[in-house]
Amino acid sequence: MKKIKVGILGATGAVGQRLVQLLTNHPWFEINSLCASEKSAGKPYGDIVNWKISTGIPGEIAKLKVGLCEPTIDAKLVFSALDSSVAGEIEENFAKNGYVVVSNSRNHRMDSDVPLLIPEVNASHLKLIEIQKKRWGLRGFIVTNPNCTVCGLTLVLKPLDDAFGVKKVIVTSMQALSGAGYPGVASLDALDNVIPYIDGEEEKLETEPLKILGEFKNGRIVDRDLKISAHCNRVSVRDGHTETLTIEFEKKPARDAIIKVLSGFKGESYKLDLPSAPKKPIVYLPGRDRPQPVLDRNIGDGMSVAVGRVRESSVLDFKLVLLVHNTIRGAAGAAILNAELLLAKRLI
Amino acid sequence: MKKIKVGILGATGAVGQRLVQLLTNHPWFEINSLCASEKSAGKPYGDIVNWKISTGIPGEIAKLKVGLCEPTIDAKLVFSALDSSVAGEIEENFAKNGYVVVSNSRNHRMDSDVPLLIPEVNASHLKLIEIQKKRWGLRGFIVTNPNCTVCGLTLVLKPLDDAFGVKKVIVTSMQALSGAGYPGVASLDALDNVIPYIDGEEEKLETEPLKILGEFKNGRIVDRDLKISAHCNRVSVRDGHTETLTIEFEKKPARDAIIKVLSGFKGESYKLDLPSAPKKPIVYLPGRDRPQPVLDRNIGDGMSVAVGRVRESSVLDFKLVLLVHNTIRGAAGAAILNAELLLAKRLI
Amino acid sequence: MKKIKVGILGATGAVGQRLVQLLTNHPWFEINSLCASEKSAGKPYGDIVNWKISTGIPGEIAKLKVGLCEPTIDAKLVFSALDSSVAGEIEENFAKNGYVVVSNSRNHRMDSDVPLLIPEVNASHLKLIEIQKKRWGLRGFIVTNPNCTVCGLTLVLKPLDDAFGVKKVIVTSMQALSGAGYPGVASLDALDNVIPYIDGEEEKLETEPLKILGEFKNGRIVDRDLKISAHCNRVSVRDGHTETLTIEFEKKPARDAIIKVLSGFKGESYKLDLPSAPKKPIVYLPGRDRPQPVLDRNIGDGMSVAVGRVRESSVLDFKLVLLVHNTIRGAAGAAILNAELLLAKRLI
Amino acid sequence: MKKIKVGILGATGAVGQRLVQLLTNHPWFEINSLCASEKSAGKPYGDIVNWKISTGIPGEIAKLKVGLCEPTIDAKLVFSALDSSVAGEIEENFAKNGYVVVSNSRNHRMDSDVPLLIPEVNASHLKLIEIQKKRWGLRGFIVTNPNCTVCGLTLVLKPLDDAFGVKKVIVTSMQALSGAGYPGVASLDALDNVIPYIDGEEEKLETEPLKILGEFKNGRIVDRDLKISAHCNRVSVRDGHTETLTIEFEKKPARDAIIKVLSGFKGESYKLDLPSAPKKPIVYLPGRDRPQPVLDRNIGDGMSVAVGRVRESSVLDFKLVLLVHNTIRGAAGAAILNAELLLAKRLI
Repeated sequence: MKKIKVGILGATGAVGQRLVQLLTNHPWFEINSLCASEKSAGKPYGDIVNWKISTGIPGEIAKLKVGLCEPTIDAKLVFSALDSSVAGEIEENFAKNGYVVVSNSRNHRMDSDVPLLIPEVNASHLKLIEIQKKRWGLRGFIVTNPNCTVCGLTLVLKPLDDAFGVKKVIVTSMQALSGAGYPGVASLDALDNVIPYIDGEEEKLETEPLKILGEFKNGRIVDRDLKISAHCNRVSVRDGHTETLTIEFEKKPARDAIIKVLSGFKGESYKLDLPSAPKKPIVYLPGRDRPQPVLDRNIGDGMSVAVGRVRESSVLDFKLVLLVHNTIRGAAGAAILNAELLLAKRLI
Repeated sequence: MKKIKVGILGATGAVGQRLVQLLTNHPWFEINSLCASEKSAGKPYGDIVNWKISTGIPGEIAKLKVGLCEPTIDAKLVFSALDSSVAGEIEENFAKNGYVVVSNSRNHRMDSDVPLLIPEVNASHLKLIEIQKKRWGLRGFIVTNPNCTVCGLTLVLKPLDDAFGVKKVIVTSMQALSGAGYPGVASLDALDNVIPYIDGEEEKLETEPLKILGEFKNGRIVDRDLKISAHCNRVSVRDGHTETLTIEFEKKPARDAIIKVLSGFKGESYKLDLPSAPKKPIVYLPGRDRPQPVLDRNIGDGMSVAVGRVRESSVLDFKLVLLVHNTIRGAAGAAILNAELLLAKRLI
Repeated sequence: MKKIKVGILGATGAVGQRLVQLLTNHPWFEINSLCASEKSAGKPYGDIVNWKISTGIPGEIAKLKVGLCEPTIDAKLVFSALDSSVAGEIEENFAKNGYVVVSNSRNHRMDSDVPLLIPEVNASHLKLIEIQKKRWGLRGFIVTNPNCTVCGLTLVLKPLDDAFGVKKVIVTSMQALSGAGYPGVASLDALDNVIPYIDGEEEKLETEPLKILGEFKNGRIVDRDLKISAHCNRVSVRDGHTETLTIEFEKKPARDAIIKVLSGFKGESYKLDLPSAPKKPIVYLPGRDRPQPVLDRNIGDGMSVAVGRVRESSVLDFKLVLLVHNTIRGAAGAAILNAELLLAKRLI
Repeated sequence: MKKIKVGILGATGAVGQRLVQLLTNHPWFEINSLCASEKSAGKPYGDIVNWKISTGIPGEIAKLKVGLCEPTIDAKLVFSALDSSVAGEIEENFAKNGYVVVSNSRNHRMDSDVPLLIPEVNASHLKLIEIQKKRWGLRGFIVTNPNCTVCGLTLVLKPLDDAFGVKKVIVTSMQALSGAGYPGVASLDALDNVIPYIDGEEEKLETEPLKILGEFKNGRIVDRDLKISAHCNRVSVRDGHTETLTIEFEKKPARDAIIKVLSGFKGESYKLDLPSAPKKPIVYLPGRDRPQPVLDRNIGDGMSVAVGRVRESSVLDFKLVLLVHNTIRGAAGAAILNAELLLAKRLI
């Protein structure tokens, strides 16, 4: 199979760098264009990127000349890691011009005809694409992946909702510094501290999962009818968002049943054997003090969500803890998995 | 007024050191005896303590010779900062021999005739002392202060419960390293990590507040009938436990009413003018990203609980964040405030 | 004595906030004007400052309306905590207009007629002021304090140089995050990391001490003839710069003699009894693992330099470790002490 | 080639775990025995190890039953990661009984007939083995690798010494927490702090390199005649020791010559193509703020030493910064590379 040429919009930022890392030596995709803002354009990527991933910048990519975010690049598919201040318009421009846009930005996530996609959870929402294409008048379209904290939460809620019906969720997140990008959080705010607020995050956590868990019906997504209430906090961790969940079910299951359902979850996209898909989307850890970012964030190459401490709660029904690698499963890896799904479903 | 001579049991540990610091130059108490285990006894305190408080060890205290934890010391009142593996028996031994024991240890907290005391919340529970004294056959007795995380939670619940009736609480704590004592948490577990488990902590958080908020009736405490469900986590913070709360009330109040009730809380002991009592037991912070340990843990010299982010919740009724200085308001300062209450009430 | 009215230029930054904190309730000075950039001017200080000091913003100061950095304010003396990108010109402008400028900025430090001042070390350099005044044609002038890392180093070198003659120094610093201001170092660069480079810092450390230790002769300072070689590193510490020193003397002294000279150091300004002067400018700590930022940075209210681990070296002569509180002794406190010296010497 | 069966002594500790990780799927060695103290013996490794490496414990190894550290195991070669309190005797016992002991412990490092080995630096010291064997009266023997900080320092000094003659070195280390093992440094000592002391470390740093850089002559090693003076500090970093060096040469070279010699270094063992040998033992990084632990510690899979900031010094001749991964190149990886060298040289 010949590899598909892809571009990366916003290639110099934190998520852009992760995309570069994860797409290097990808079996299906080949980085052909790196796009960034005007001040970077025209220079070799290695000269202008402030590379922050410990594996180092891939040699051949370092030499690629950076271009502008304009829909004239030689690629069928573009990954967007653009800042939300500019992503909306640029992504639309690419879609209008026939590109498939796989975006990590929040701008189009809640558009009624744009799939907010987690392959294991709602591959069926790809049906929105046909509807969306009409908007752009061409073969281009946009798919998005959810916010990093949402991704971990929704992956865990999906099998529980399917099996037992989820009614209410209270979630407190302890989110990693990398979620704020670079330079992001000041060290004087991070050291020896917790910041009990992340701008816009609780709103996303309370709404995005409802769309993702919703049903495609009569040409649109009907949101899942459940309630989520969120507390979002920033803690002194590099990568890996920890979330404590308290859940009420339609019918309270046994603890063992919950663990079985989580461990056995395969997801809608399982049979497609996508290259970035983890063998187990959810890994249950029996240790009494797990999951922990430093020990568990790389499970499934950062694409699995780790779950532990499933136990009964005296308020609502059950409590558990989950951990999601925010820049892999929650951002760059999520986008790549979405692109793989599109290709496997012959939508590119 | 002549100062009361006091002893400190377990004077070399983390809480013991805080007691030494806070009792130095105390207007009512005077440290007369420092007691520790056999291997320290007979040596000057300054030679054997691994002092960890940034203000330095008070000069005159450094010279005090450390004694054994035996009820022969020249003091009326002893503060106990003993490890729970030995606290139970030693404290009983002191009470039996006529000492007033003000303990921070968990061993006797849930004894039916021992007050689990926060002066602002349940000074009325001092009535248990008369009953308890019969147990020891003498004038000695034990009073205890709650667990550090419980202290912050209960101080905030008290005025809300009085005003609106609290029915259910879900709390997620992000607790400081100093709560585990010294050496406590290994640095390799703390750096770049969250540990979603603290041994025995969730049980305390779910039960101790019910006793504290209970009512003295017919010679015993009737627990308050409300439900608390807890998630306890360790984060990389030196001092200051942050707790996110979601609360259901008997009758849902307006947001402003909650803030007013919290800010206006004075507590049962207000009129006694205790030297360690903060002017405001609860300080409401309007900033959208407060309270934060690094900025707010020392409010009221570490004796006030800081509260912020009061907002409605789609599950249960309201959400908020609180911060309590765990080694001051949650341990050494709590014990000293209890001793001051005893003296003000002429129980010593 | 009536208090002197003072202004603070750059009042909203990290050093500006420390100046506000330390000048509140100062026995000799009274904050009359807070000056900042155009976007802050006209608003109450409390509304626009992003206050980061744990003691909280003093109530009366919060209400002060912020003004522009223009030499029309009602004050005799201004403290400058301006960024070096603008400090040069603004400070000159104030001096020209008759103000006494006490600056923490680097712009004028090496001007031949500007004292680079540490009261305990080179109060005699105040003689430069008469010469400098001619430059401005008026009674205004500028005095500066050294870079934070330089301040600790020079205070320790002074008594050693006086007693034994210092020839060569190799210094490796491990500098606190607050030295970079706010937001300063990104948390992703600080967590789990050492950055072995601080822009411009090694140059300052290798040159500023030579001027400070120099001699006033024939109307100018003759630099001290000794060699300093520096390695500067940023580490994950909030406040407190640690420096390891290896020193060669003109005549190698005994270890005890070094400790005696350091411990006994009082400095030129000792008899003036300046309010911010520490009782001991240098505190020698005998513990084998001291000084440590978390334990020792507040010695002498942050105005003393802590020294430990004095021992022979097989290369050059002696090794030791020092710790200086960078935002107090190394910045705001240094400037205030300089202003106190000026007042005591009747130069204001 | 059939794999050599190996045992690991002290398999549950921090270095023991790294050995397990790095030996899993090793092309030449196969873990056959895991040995630990009495309290662990008889149980599956996975049940008793407190595994702390983020890649997870290899499945087949988890099932291995742990044995005692007794020379009856089915293996030719044992890796020793024993604590120095017991390593000396146990290692001798294995050597006496005919095992090849490849040790990371310090006990036998300075024995006159035991090679203190870095394959790239002093493979020629293997000649000591013939002499040592006589001590044990059998075919067993011990080889050791140096202390973690020494390993980085010596690898960098070797090519410089060969090319220009090194006379004097002043080194300040900023060492990672993992160097102290687990639990090791308390989090309350690590957070927001630098500890300017590591027990015994400076002595090792000042002596071990002299043996490693020494010459085998008349049946013994003649130490290299140069002087090293060390300051050792603990900083809040998980893995990776940073060292600042100031060096005096016999003949001061040009800066470019130093960089060329470092970058071009291949080492004595280069032609043997050992599986764990990095392509480049020393990687020179031109960035002005490199090397940094978080970005550079994994260069060469943690087996290369990263060097940066080569520049002239006004005291002695040159300054530079190096970074060595302390648990890989400085411990477990070092031991494995030594074992590979023994096999390649047909000494097993």
